[in-house]
Amino acid sequence: MSSILKGNAVVGQSGGPTAVINQSLVGVIESIAPSDAIAKLYGARHGVRGIIEDNFIELNDIDKDTLERVAQTPCAALGSTRDKPDEAYCEKIFESLARHDIRYFFYCGGNDSADTTRIVNELAKEKNYELRVFHIPKTIDNDLRVTDHCPGYGSAAKFVASAIMGDDRDSASLPGIKIDVIMGRHAGWLTAAASLARQDQSDGPHLIYVPESPVSEAKFVNEVADVYAKYGRCLVAVSEGIEDDDGVAWGEKIVENAERDSHGNVQLSGSGALGDFLSEMVKTKVAAKIGIKTLRVRADTFGYLQRSFAGYASAVDQAEARLAGRKAVEYALAGDVSGSVAFKRTGEGADYAIECFRAELKDVARDTKDLPPEFINDAGNGITEKFRRYALPLIGELPVIGKL
Amino acid sequence: MSSILKGNAVVGQSGGPTAVINQSLVGVIESIAPSDAIAKLYGARHGVRGIIEDNFIELNDIDKDTLERVAQTPCAALGSTRDKPDEAYCEKIFESLARHDIRYFFYCGGNDSADTTRIVNELAKEKNYELRVFHIPKTIDNDLRVTDHCPGYGSAAKFVASAIMGDDRDSASLPGIKIDVIMGRHAGWLTAAASLARQDQSDGPHLIYVPESPVSEAKFVNEVADVYAKYGRCLVAVSEGIEDDDGVAWGEKIVENAERDSHGNVQLSGSGALGDFLSEMVKTKVAAKIGIKTLRVRADTFGYLQRSFAGYASAVDQAEARLAGRKAVEYALAGDVSGSVAFKRTGEGADYAIECFRAELKDVARDTKDLPPEFINDAGNGITEKFRRYALPLIGELPVIGKL
Repeated sequence: MSSILKGNAVVGQSGGPTAVINQSLVGVIESIAPSDAIAKLYGARHGVRGIIEDNFIELNDIDKDTLERVAQTPCAALGSTRDKPDEAYCEKIFESLARHDIRYFFYCGGNDSADTTRIVNELAKEKNYELRVFHIPKTIDNDLRVTDHCPGYGSAAKFVASAIMGDDRDSASLPGIKIDVIMGRHAGWLTAAASLARQDQSDGPHLIYVPESPVSEAKFVNEVADVYAKYGRCLVAVSEGIEDDDGVAWGEKIVENAERDSHGNVQLSGSGALGDFLSEMVKTKVAAKIGIKTLRVRADTFGYLQRSFAGYASAVDQAEARLAGRKAVEYALAGDVSGSVAFKRTGEGADYAIECFRAELKDVARDTKDLPPEFINDAGNGITEKFRRYALPLIGELPVIGKL
Repeated sequence: MSSILKGNAVVGQSGGPTAVINQSLVGVIESIAPSDAIAKLYGARHGVRGIIEDNFIELNDIDKDTLERVAQTPCAALGSTRDKPDEAYCEKIFESLARHDIRYFFYCGGNDSADTTRIVNELAKEKNYELRVFHIPKTIDNDLRVTDHCPGYGSAAKFVASAIMGDDRDSASLPGIKIDVIMGRHAGWLTAAASLARQDQSDGPHLIYVPESPVSEAKFVNEVADVYAKYGRCLVAVSEGIEDDDGVAWGEKIVENAERDSHGNVQLSGSGALGDFLSEMVKTKVAAKIGIKTLRVRADTFGYLQRSFAGYASAVDQAEARLAGRKAVEYALAGDVSGSVAFKRTGEGADYAIECFRAELKDVARDTKDLPPEFINDAGNGITEKFRRYALPLIGELPVIGKL
């Protein structure tokens, strides 16, 4: 075992918030407190930006009651950032760490954050600066590699499933066609959670479209019309990133003068454009196809509520996010130099259980993980029972639904 | 006391669903069960439409477990309708009631439903057909007259307040300007509930605009810019029905070829158009005003989730909606001929309590109740402490929020 590395520590939060990212933060804070090795624990305001701008708060002496309240609170209590550091930016991060004698760097985020920690770790090695660098996974998109699932996903999936359960009853109350647009630019994990709302054959969502399975306008219109003919209504769940069969996202096609992020991606969230477009398309083309003059069509875009809604997190997700924060500290104090905390599933169904393990940063950084083909039905318009078995334990509890 | 009126009964649900409309339904079912007076209890499928089309189910022998599950389930378990009966339609309703020897008519809905029951009651009197007609209030809009508040409002208000609480933390995590569009075409009650999310002075929503207080583009832009200058971010809650200072709804102005309902109103819900319009306006005009080139602006339209989200109803609202259903039956069996169940507040704050009383149908039907001036701040961009005292008890419990 390596000798105890003494110095300060920093923790930061990055990317789109989740309902449980503060659980991981509190997991780090409470695990560092008893350690002799770490003198000061800094919280970086707004992630890496706080590090390079020396914008820190000290986290050593926060009372337990405040910590528990923070843990229950959605979104990043330290503030988050959309900055995606390149090599030069990472140099600045490293310099700040060295300047503050920071020897432990904990960073909670998605694949980009894993890449940031990977680069900073390389720099430290090059410069012979002893540093422990740990990535703590966080994303409602559930698209990180290696780990079975990501903290943040279960709570977002619970929100989506509950929203769809209610919206399906809404659609049964006042029938028509309803389109719900769910977050997920590249991966359909969160949209797939809509399938958890179904209890009977006739329940919505009747159609689920994810980016992994392109859908042409003709396919969309035909399938909605078929469901409407069968049930007199149709509830559709679509990922914001659904693609036409030429591989181009629908959102890209319809948005003129679109706002693009630092990756050149069109802004899909925080806008109702895709939902409104699909709604108009269905209103004209499905109505014409089935020979109805006026069709009741509505679209909702679930938006930021999916990641930030207060008071409705999955208890399983909360506990696992807390554990991920604790494990990062445990690995670092035990002498591991770097890594990302990952989950391995050790029990299924009612015996659901996980174990944590240390993944290599390079295996988590950069690339993401799509919804695998076995979770998508053959018709490319629904989600399989196998996904249900995978996702249900992560949600904790679903609402009760009764019918007459 | 009048002699016991023997015959059958019908119960129906109307208008936009709520999270607790089935509580009222179950309140009716369970209160009728022990009565000797009522032989059959019919449930009308899709409200008055089910009555005129003889589309009923029998509700006498539903087991308690199913009833409790139904009570927990949002939206109308019997199905709802948007039909707003005129005199001729009401004649058909009356004929159907007479044909089925229905002597008790319970109808759960908003002001239009109260008007339907009022007309049917008049017809029964004209024709010397002994009938008991009771309206059970239901609306997330909270805009019924006479009653202190409406079943359905507390749950929708809890959803909105929780969503805004989370979204405010989201906005603090990744600062910018965020606009949340909340249901409410004419009355700002539900949008006002966004104010319950605030705990500290710097918390959002920083600005709240309701239809009762018109806001011009210039006022909107200036006020958002001022908040942004002060806090580096701004969270705005707006009613879907906000009006320009010429009294025309913004939603009316921006929607070309808009879908209109049977009242000639533009379809505002189930579309992201208003949010996207405000977002674009802010992006250009506020950015220009404060001299920032690119401003992070997002809009979410909360949509149908506000009325239908499963598993998150207010416990107070659930209990009161159940009570309203029970009271309607109690009044009818006690010999009252017609009325609407109304609430009177008998205790405030921690001692919050209500009593039910019978209101006259004519006093509840047709017209609605706006948010009173005392609940809107002088600047017309926020909600008063007095509203907070009014609304907090209806919500039951709000999420815990902690900050660092």
